[in-house]
Amino acid sequence: MADLSAFELEELARTYENASPTDILASALERHDSVAISFSGAEDVVLIDMAIKIRSDIRVFSLDTGRLHSETYRFFDKVRDHYRVDIEVQFPDSAAVEQMIVCKGFHSFYADDHKECCAIRKVGPLRRKLATLDAWITGQREDQNAGTRHGLPAIQYDAAFATPEHALFKYNPLTHWSSAKVWEYIRRHSVPYNPLHERGYISIGCEPCTRAVLPNQPERDGRWWWEESTLKECGLHALNVASR
Amino acid sequence: MADLSAFELEELARTYENASPTDILASALERHDSVAISFSGAEDVVLIDMAIKIRSDIRVFSLDTGRLHSETYRFFDKVRDHYRVDIEVQFPDSAAVEQMIVCKGFHSFYADDHKECCAIRKVGPLRRKLATLDAWITGQREDQNAGTRHGLPAIQYDAAFATPEHALFKYNPLTHWSSAKVWEYIRRHSVPYNPLHERGYISIGCEPCTRAVLPNQPERDGRWWWEESTLKECGLHALNVASR
Amino acid sequence: MADLSAFELEELARTYENASPTDILASALERHDSVAISFSGAEDVVLIDMAIKIRSDIRVFSLDTGRLHSETYRFFDKVRDHYRVDIEVQFPDSAAVEQMIVCKGFHSFYADDHKECCAIRKVGPLRRKLATLDAWITGQREDQNAGTRHGLPAIQYDAAFATPEHALFKYNPLTHWSSAKVWEYIRRHSVPYNPLHERGYISIGCEPCTRAVLPNQPERDGRWWWEESTLKECGLHALNVASR
Amino acid sequence: MADLSAFELEELARTYENASPTDILASALERHDSVAISFSGAEDVVLIDMAIKIRSDIRVFSLDTGRLHSETYRFFDKVRDHYRVDIEVQFPDSAAVEQMIVCKGFHSFYADDHKECCAIRKVGPLRRKLATLDAWITGQREDQNAGTRHGLPAIQYDAAFATPEHALFKYNPLTHWSSAKVWEYIRRHSVPYNPLHERGYISIGCEPCTRAVLPNQPERDGRWWWEESTLKECGLHALNVASR
Repeated sequence: MADLSAFELEELARTYENASPTDILASALERHDSVAISFSGAEDVVLIDMAIKIRSDIRVFSLDTGRLHSETYRFFDKVRDHYRVDIEVQFPDSAAVEQMIVCKGFHSFYADDHKECCAIRKVGPLRRKLATLDAWITGQREDQNAGTRHGLPAIQYDAAFATPEHALFKYNPLTHWSSAKVWEYIRRHSVPYNPLHERGYISIGCEPCTRAVLPNQPERDGRWWWEESTLKECGLHALNVASR
Repeated sequence: MADLSAFELEELARTYENASPTDILASALERHDSVAISFSGAEDVVLIDMAIKIRSDIRVFSLDTGRLHSETYRFFDKVRDHYRVDIEVQFPDSAAVEQMIVCKGFHSFYADDHKECCAIRKVGPLRRKLATLDAWITGQREDQNAGTRHGLPAIQYDAAFATPEHALFKYNPLTHWSSAKVWEYIRRHSVPYNPLHERGYISIGCEPCTRAVLPNQPERDGRWWWEESTLKECGLHALNVASR
Repeated sequence: MADLSAFELEELARTYENASPTDILASALERHDSVAISFSGAEDVVLIDMAIKIRSDIRVFSLDTGRLHSETYRFFDKVRDHYRVDIEVQFPDSAAVEQMIVCKGFHSFYADDHKECCAIRKVGPLRRKLATLDAWITGQREDQNAGTRHGLPAIQYDAAFATPEHALFKYNPLTHWSSAKVWEYIRRHSVPYNPLHERGYISIGCEPCTRAVLPNQPERDGRWWWEESTLKECGLHALNVASR
Repeated sequence: MADLSAFELEELARTYENASPTDILASALERHDSVAISFSGAEDVVLIDMAIKIRSDIRVFSLDTGRLHSETYRFFDKVRDHYRVDIEVQFPDSAAVEQMIVCKGFHSFYADDHKECCAIRKVGPLRRKLATLDAWITGQREDQNAGTRHGLPAIQYDAAFATPEHALFKYNPLTHWSSAKVWEYIRRHSVPYNPLHERGYISIGCEPCTRAVLPNQPERDGRWWWEESTLKECGLHALNVASR
C-alpha cells in the first residue's frame, strides 16, 4: 500500500466511521494527490455539491457506456455547467464493442447476463481511469442493496482494482445515509437532479438495463431485473460481492 | 341515523379498530343493504381484490371527472374485466362544466384553486351517488397525509354527505396500512395496477392535477402541488378537514 | 330555409367556389347573425387566426367529449389566451355517458364501433349547439378523405342538422386547401398548434380513437383505425356520408 | 480505379439510370467482391429487404455513434433477427470521444456545429469500414434534400472516401424513389420499421440531433435544426456537398 498503511487505513476508518459525508469527503480530498469523484448521473450528484463547497478544484469522472439515457447525457452537461467542473468521461474500447455487437447484437445481456457487456462498457474503462488515481469516491450506500452493500464502510482499500504496484483507496461518504436523507439534501440545497427521477427511476444506469420501480419497490429492482441474483453489482463495486 | 345507532357505531368502531382490512370489508358488506366501494383508479384496487374474495356481488363506483389520464380509463376497464364487476361511473353535469369552461377555460384551478373544479367534477357527482347508498368504502389511509388523515378511523359516520333524512357510513379498511403494505399485497396477489405507478405516480387523480413525485417525496406532493396548504383534500373526504 | 333561399345559396356557392378562405369566412361572418367556428383542437386553428383578423367578436365552439388528450385541453387554453376568445364548450349529457359506461366500459368502440360513443359525446352536444346557430364554419378539407370529403363545397345547406323549423348553413372555407397549404399558413403566421402535431399526429380527435400516422400515411388512418370502412366520419359531418 | 474503369462506370450509370432498386442492388451485389449495405436504422431498411431476396449472404454495416435512440438500438436487433443478418457495427474511437467530451461536454454541436462530433462518431468509423470495401450501398434519395441530393445518381464513384490506392463505388438504388414509394413498399411487404416513425420522425440519426417534424415539413428539418444551412449532410455523404 502506497500512501496509506494498513494500520493507518484501519485507524482512519475508525475515525471516520460516524463522520458526516462532508467530513469524509474533506478527508479524502485532502489526503490524496490524485482523487476523483465517480459520478453516475443519479443522486450521487450530492457528492459533487458537497465537495465543491470544500474546494473548487475537485475532479469528477463518469463512465459513458454508449448506452445511457439521453436524459443522463443532458444531466451530465447540466452538472458541468452548474458546478463549472469538467467531467472526465471514459468511453469503451471500440474494437471490444464492435466485436460483441457483430456477434451478439445490441441486447445480449437479456439472453446471457449483464457481465460481458458491463465488462466492456464499464469495468474496462473504469480500470483505465483508476490506474491513474490514488483514491476514488463513490455514492454507494448501505440501504441500496441489503444483499451486497450491507456493512459497506465509509473508507476501504480497493482490493478489486488495486494492483501490487498501485495502491487504491475507495471512499463511500454516503454509506450510512438513507435514500430519504439524500433526497432531503437535494431538495434543501436545490441540487440539480436527473429528470428520470421524476418518472419513477431511483437507481440509474444504462438505458436497456434500468427501469422505473413501483412505489415502495426496492431500488435495485430497477436494474438487471431479468436476473434472479440478489447480488446485483455491475463490476464497478466487485469488492462488495467478492468479500462475501 | 338509520341502520346503525350512534351507540352501535361507537361499539363497532371499537371492535374493528384493530381488525384486518378484510374483516372490516366483510363487516361493511354484510351490514348494509346498499354499500359500494369507491374506486379511484389507483392502489385502492386492493379493496376490490379483497372484497371480491368475500362475495362476488360487490358494487364499485368511480368518478369520471372527464379529465382522467388515458391510462386510468384503460385501467378501469382492466379491473372491470379482471374482476368481472361493473363500474358505476358518475359523470359531471354538463351545464356546470360548460359554464365553468366558457368563463375560465380548462385550467382555472392553477390560477384559482382546485375547489370549484372539484366541486363540479367530483363532489357533485359523488353526492348524487352517495344519496343512493347507506355506506361507502374508501381506500384512505392515515399515512397518505399527516395533515388531514392522521387518526382516520376505520369506520365513521359521514357527516359531510349524510343528511337529516339519510344516514351514511364510511369505511376506511386500509387506514392503518402503510403504502409499503398495500404494495406488498399488490405484488403478492398479482393485483392489476395502474401503469402510471410505473412512471413515478403514487396518488392518482385528474391528469392536470396529478404528477409523479421524486424518490422519497410524500405522495400528496403529487396532487395540487401549486397550492401551499397542508390540508389537501378534494372534497370527497371533506370530513377529514372539517373535523380539524 | 330561413335567412338564405335555395336560389341564393346556389348563387352564393357559385360566387365563392374559388374564393380564398378569408373571403369565404368574411362572407359567413357578415351574412349570419348567429354563426360560430367549430374548433376541433387540430390545425383548424387557422380558421380562428383568419377570422380574428376580419373581426374581433367571432364565436368559437368546441366539443369536449371528456376523452380528449391533455395536450388538446392545454391547447384550447393556449388558443383562448392567444386570440382572447372564449371557447364555448359542449359537454356530454351525464346520464347518457353513465349508462353507456356502466354497461360497456370505457372502450366499447373497439368492440362495437365508434357510432354509439360519438353519438353521445359528439353528435348530441353538437346538435344542442347547432340548434342555437344559423350557420357554422368547419375546417373540413377535400384532401382529408378521398372517400367522404371529395367534392366538398365551400358553402352548403346542412340538411343533417337543420330542421323544418330551423335552417342551418355550413361553411368549409378550407375545403380546397391542401394539408401542405394549411401548414405553410401555420408556419408563416406563427399560428399556435397542438403539440401532438410534433409527435406524428395529423388528424386529432378523442385520445382512444386517434393515433399518430407513419410518414406518407393518409391522415384518416389515424382515426378509428380498427374499422375497415372508407367512410370514416364521426357524425358531425354526416352530411358527407349521407349524400353518397 | 480498381475493379471498374471510368468508362465502365459511365456506361453502367447510363444502363442503370432508370433501373429498379432491385436491379441496381443485384448489379452491385454481383459486381463487387466486397460490398455492403449501409444501414442507418431508418427506412433504408427496405434495401435489406430487397437485397436479402436476391441473395442471403449480404453484408450490412451500421454506425453506432454511442448516441442513438434506444428505439434504434432495439430496431437494429429486430432487423438482425428478422433477416438473420449480422450487423457490422462501427463504434467511435474512445480517445477521440473522451477528449471531445472532457473539453466541451456532451452537446457541443448545439453551440458549435455538428461537424466535429460527426467527424468523430460517424466519419472516422465510416472511413475505417469503407477502407475494407470495394463498394457501398446507401438509402439516399433525391427527394430527401433538394439542396444536397438533387440529381443524385444511382451509381457513382465515391471520390470522398476512395484513395489513390483504393477505389470505391457507391450505389444509391433508391435515389429516384419518393418517400411515399418507400413507405408503400414497407407497408406492402410488411417490412419492420423503427417505431420512431410512429412518433413523427422521418429522417433518423443521433438522438440529440434528430427530432420529429410537423405534418408536411421537409424531412431534413428534423436534423441539425439549429443550423441554418441548406446543405445538411453529416459527412457520410460529403460527396453530395463537395460536388456543388
